[in-house]
Amino acid sequence: MRCLVAFALLALAAPSLAFADPADPTDQQMLRRIYDAALDHSPAYEQLRILTEEFPGRLAGTAAYDGAAHWSIALLQQLGCDRTELQPVTVPSWERGAPESVQLLRGDDIIPLAALALGGSVATPPDGLTASIVELPNVAALTTTDVRGKIVFFNGPMNPTYVNTGRAYSEAGAQRNRGPAEAARHGAIAVVVRSLTHALDDEPHTGSTTYLPDVPRIPAAAISTVAAERLSATLAADPAAQLKIMINSQWLPDAPSANVIGEIRGSEFPEQIILVGGHLDSWDITPGAHDDGSGCIQSIDVLRILKAVGYQPRYTIRCVLFTNEENGLRGALEYARIAGDKKEHHALALETDSGGFRPSGFNLGNAAGDAHLKAARWKSLFEPYGIFQFQAGRGGADVGPLMAKGNTVAGLMPDSQRYFDYHHTRADSIDKVNRRELELGAAAMAALVYLVDRHGL
Amino acid sequence: MRCLVAFALLALAAPSLAFADPADPTDQQMLRRIYDAALDHSPAYEQLRILTEEFPGRLAGTAAYDGAAHWSIALLQQLGCDRTELQPVTVPSWERGAPESVQLLRGDDIIPLAALALGGSVATPPDGLTASIVELPNVAALTTTDVRGKIVFFNGPMNPTYVNTGRAYSEAGAQRNRGPAEAARHGAIAVVVRSLTHALDDEPHTGSTTYLPDVPRIPAAAISTVAAERLSATLAADPAAQLKIMINSQWLPDAPSANVIGEIRGSEFPEQIILVGGHLDSWDITPGAHDDGSGCIQSIDVLRILKAVGYQPRYTIRCVLFTNEENGLRGALEYARIAGDKKEHHALALETDSGGFRPSGFNLGNAAGDAHLKAARWKSLFEPYGIFQFQAGRGGADVGPLMAKGNTVAGLMPDSQRYFDYHHTRADSIDKVNRRELELGAAAMAALVYLVDRHGL
Repeated sequence: MRCLVAFALLALAAPSLAFADPADPTDQQMLRRIYDAALDHSPAYEQLRILTEEFPGRLAGTAAYDGAAHWSIALLQQLGCDRTELQPVTVPSWERGAPESVQLLRGDDIIPLAALALGGSVATPPDGLTASIVELPNVAALTTTDVRGKIVFFNGPMNPTYVNTGRAYSEAGAQRNRGPAEAARHGAIAVVVRSLTHALDDEPHTGSTTYLPDVPRIPAAAISTVAAERLSATLAADPAAQLKIMINSQWLPDAPSANVIGEIRGSEFPEQIILVGGHLDSWDITPGAHDDGSGCIQSIDVLRILKAVGYQPRYTIRCVLFTNEENGLRGALEYARIAGDKKEHHALALETDSGGFRPSGFNLGNAAGDAHLKAARWKSLFEPYGIFQFQAGRGGADVGPLMAKGNTVAGLMPDSQRYFDYHHTRADSIDKVNRRELELGAAAMAALVYLVDRHGL
Repeated sequence: MRCLVAFALLALAAPSLAFADPADPTDQQMLRRIYDAALDHSPAYEQLRILTEEFPGRLAGTAAYDGAAHWSIALLQQLGCDRTELQPVTVPSWERGAPESVQLLRGDDIIPLAALALGGSVATPPDGLTASIVELPNVAALTTTDVRGKIVFFNGPMNPTYVNTGRAYSEAGAQRNRGPAEAARHGAIAVVVRSLTHALDDEPHTGSTTYLPDVPRIPAAAISTVAAERLSATLAADPAAQLKIMINSQWLPDAPSANVIGEIRGSEFPEQIILVGGHLDSWDITPGAHDDGSGCIQSIDVLRILKAVGYQPRYTIRCVLFTNEENGLRGALEYARIAGDKKEHHALALETDSGGFRPSGFNLGNAAGDAHLKAARWKSLFEPYGIFQFQAGRGGADVGPLMAKGNTVAGLMPDSQRYFDYHHTRADSIDKVNRRELELGAAAMAALVYLVDRHGL
């Protein structure tokens, strides 16, 4: 592409920069100011670099998390919040321990497979666990296959034909989330799961698994998609091949942690809240750049942007960085409990936890089911900035407990194509985040917060 | 992000896979089939890997281009085209020669700056060219500054506040395209230009510059944005600093090249054409993955997809891979000339030359100015796939000559945030392309081609 003129003619019609009356800008003018503040010399990307490089592996209850929490609250204080708080939360505590290993044993060959224990997995015996393998396409196949005494290998790929990759993740995700418990119910002794990604590479993706009270807890690990393809091909050629799994994890007593809160007090309705937030914790093995360092930095940046454009909110604008989203949701539950006790009303709780990619819209949810229709009245304001979607939804995991209490919630919708390339892996690092995509997410959130604050939802 | 259920609820409502009558599918069903064929086991990404890794630096008129052309036409033949053609085109021929260098001289210090000669630049004397420097923010500043005998350093950044980065490229691009000629008109002896990118890194971006017949041709190079910042800071501290530029390029006689053409003959209107295309040439220093290897592979894939879904087009569907887009546009001009001589009518000429990123819509142009409005009647069919935009435009550089002859043109609109991170650099390689984003572009193009073929535009 070289043609300068043609590209100019394709440019989106941008609202004018000229203000008729700077003291009382129109919504169109305010959105332009917000996007200017978000895109021109934003500190967001450098902040995300610091968060992910200085505090990787910030699982709730760890020193890395606590470091990130103190760094974040200092940032909120520096940008002039009227109030900051470390809101105490007690969180479950699980440690990976010495690195896990999954080995494919075929005849005399020992073939290491790239693997990560699932979050919350129990340990194997210290010398590991060796058994033959049953490959299954999904959890349902347990009912028609004898898996007693075996290692179950769930090898269901994510469906590539869904344009929204989150839908494919949800469907294939059952084998990671429920698979180990269901396999144990049928007599399996361990589980390995194909990593939840469309990418064919050697990066294992961890994530939580949920045990059930009435069945044995068996060790469970994810293997990379390349390892899964290799394992499947080996089993087709040699059904007697075995796996040796070694997992050194342990469960510890619950630990102290905290949600990070910073707010700008509202001038008219200080007791009513517009919340912006993401989760500050990450899995133990990842820098957590897209999940959810991006969301935290974008949420902080919403406050910076509103101050930069000189907007005095009528509602209290509160940034909340939740703890323990990845392995407990205790931060979100405790926040909602305390908000309920204080009878705080949230005019909107806006979450961002789908990666720092190019945003295209919002999902919104409320008791009446019409929040997305109400927000859609601003569609023409947003379209010049590439925000087209206002659809019904439930915001995200961390605002779920608030929605359950009758508050209106929303979630930023970034493009989902690349998210599961990095999700829950060591590769979810700052170099995978594009500066402008990150900034556009913060701008879209700030714009929605401004509109809700000015006009109500 | 861990919540499986919430993500499922956010999933876009996808059209049903069940066909009422498989022999006569609805448009909704056909789009679903097209997207399935594009997203499930597509060969496109591996084809792009081969094109970019085996034929990098495929400037028109070079052996690399010819290799890419023969590889492409074989691919078109393999997928069952009714006709293929290497359409001869004579192209300008410019060689970079031995690597260029730009050195900053300050006192006894010699500081190398990452640089690439602009495409088409004349050479410096063999020993290089040394002079003091005048930094200017844009071409207009030439009228108020004495640049005689100096090297002009155009240091205008791309405007970060435009959401469409192409608009910023167009504005800042004047310093690369017209800057050297205008500086020469004012007496400058050479030009260095800040690379056209939002990224702050050490990657220089080349691109064409346009000399004028009535002014001297002076050497011109782009330097990386990091180098531009360094040079600017040095000049602020020491205005006497100099640059030494060495460029070893040469212009050669025009060379033979060819457009690559493959088509599926139409069953009802074989003499009417629906064209899909990109440009096969790239700058000499780049694998050209986004610019425009992606567009070529997507265009080829449109034919594969239509065959895969069993659709027999009524119009002739023609894939054209143009030569010499980067430094002459001779391929597009010759194609349009021959089409005019043959009185071929193009019902649509759809170009893809803005990178293999997530598509969000199309621009369309015709003589009446209403092509985008006509295509917008299919908006609801496209929205489940994330295609929202149908805007007035001119397609792109290679379909420009067809539009000038009265044909209807269109251009795929992928997201523009990352394009100029890689544009015209050595870094525009396969690893910068996401498989699914590439495939979604091919799917959107195939869907538009199908709809125009079935219903007319």
